[in-house]
Amino acid sequence: MKQQTFVIVGLGLMGGSLAVDLRKNFPSANIVGISRHEKKILYAKKKKIINEGFVRIETALKKAHVIFLCSPVGTLEDYISKIDCFAEPGTVVTDVGSTKFKLVNWTDHQRFKNIKFVGSHPLAGSHLRGVEHAIPSLYKNALVFVTPTHQTNQKALQVVVSIWEKLKAQVKIISPADHDKIVSEISHLPHALAAVLVNLVSSRSIDCAASGFLDTTRIAQGYPKLWVPIFESNRKNLIKDLKRYQNLLKKLICLLEKRSKNGLEKFLFYASERRSQLKKRACL
Amino acid sequence: MKQQTFVIVGLGLMGGSLAVDLRKNFPSANIVGISRHEKKILYAKKKKIINEGFVRIETALKKAHVIFLCSPVGTLEDYISKIDCFAEPGTVVTDVGSTKFKLVNWTDHQRFKNIKFVGSHPLAGSHLRGVEHAIPSLYKNALVFVTPTHQTNQKALQVVVSIWEKLKAQVKIISPADHDKIVSEISHLPHALAAVLVNLVSSRSIDCAASGFLDTTRIAQGYPKLWVPIFESNRKNLIKDLKRYQNLLKKLICLLEKRSKNGLEKFLFYASERRSQLKKRACL
Repeated sequence: MKQQTFVIVGLGLMGGSLAVDLRKNFPSANIVGISRHEKKILYAKKKKIINEGFVRIETALKKAHVIFLCSPVGTLEDYISKIDCFAEPGTVVTDVGSTKFKLVNWTDHQRFKNIKFVGSHPLAGSHLRGVEHAIPSLYKNALVFVTPTHQTNQKALQVVVSIWEKLKAQVKIISPADHDKIVSEISHLPHALAAVLVNLVSSRSIDCAASGFLDTTRIAQGYPKLWVPIFESNRKNLIKDLKRYQNLLKKLICLLEKRSKNGLEKFLFYASERRSQLKKRACL
Repeated sequence: MKQQTFVIVGLGLMGGSLAVDLRKNFPSANIVGISRHEKKILYAKKKKIINEGFVRIETALKKAHVIFLCSPVGTLEDYISKIDCFAEPGTVVTDVGSTKFKLVNWTDHQRFKNIKFVGSHPLAGSHLRGVEHAIPSLYKNALVFVTPTHQTNQKALQVVVSIWEKLKAQVKIISPADHDKIVSEISHLPHALAAVLVNLVSSRSIDCAASGFLDTTRIAQGYPKLWVPIFESNRKNLIKDLKRYQNLLKKLICLLEKRSKNGLEKFLFYASERRSQLKKRACL
């Protein structure tokens, strides 16, 4: 088998960590990084995270077998169009973007000359960013959504799934629409709620914050320029979930206003039990 | 100086951890534990967490210099009344309860025969419970609110403050009313919001939860029988803060509905900056 070349577009925390994991699990592979920032390329080469690095996408694609898009959600369509112009026929392209419906709906309506696209989204990351914060084994045991449709090339799907599995991720095949509903609930909604909480609390109080408040709001540190496009691309689900949240919050306020000790205990007991059970899952 | 005797009422996570920290910082002190559960006393004695243990409060108080109440918020008034009957004149009593206004208002209106009460609340803990989960150095670097009023005996106040400082806690003197406003914002509100989030999310989604969701909801695991009395004793502040939260949440939903990219970015940017700055505090 000839040497495989993996191209990673975007050397941030996700792309950098992916390069580290690919290197570990495909020791003989050629790992190519693309970044607009020369500095990031130099850093990643120095740390042996990548073998080669390029600022311009054109020069990097000739030998690519699989291309991983690890740039912000709002940049993906432009990159995919450009990659299709320069890649060799049959090149497999996937991404790590946090929303899938809008992107995959768009790729399904393109007539690509050269590439075969398969949407991915690993539920992994950090509020930190940049290749210098790359986390080894970030994808190990992580849940990775892969979102094929009727248009998806089956061979390309197999290639993408087998790479994630080689990184010891737990692959979940799901429709792009269902994917976006799930991540709205477990990622975008919690992020929005944490931001509201941080913005609400008085300066006097926030200065006294201890571990409970810090854990609850950790994700609010996420980089806004990454998160606004994520919220925008999953806007309808997020608004729907925020309104569902408003309704349930109203019910809790009613229990407090009515001094319903029994109702309050049931509410907190259900949450406590449900949350405690999550720890028991093998993959956590 | 004669040997000091510290009595801890309630051998849970808070009381057990306090015994461990007192032992470490007052090596020659006599540490007495009181619990309704014989099993806990046996465990704490076996692990050398306490020197002596009693199920009945009466027998334990004769030699007490300082008594720490580490039992649930709803039990404190009864314990204090009982302790006042059996303690020696001048015994200092403090607590670790999560709310202060209701309790201290009550103690201020009592005519104690023997005890001098000073309210405390260390911002430390865990969602776990029980003496078997006692955390060594739990109180080291923790913020400990001490809530004197005009009624508070100054010497007793000094005793309580000096003990917390000996455990290397960071003592903050504050009025009971201000204390309850602060903990409503940084502890009770986040707990309520996390419980609503856990109860809202569909089973399909919660099974996919990753680190962001888990951190955001960790505190929802708290024991409901401890939390209902806390919510009840800080009911007015909590309802007020939940309503303020509703209003700010409504604003965020408006930004999403109006597709205000700029407004959304400002909202998330403010939260991200504010939350990131918290890490920089020396005591965290």
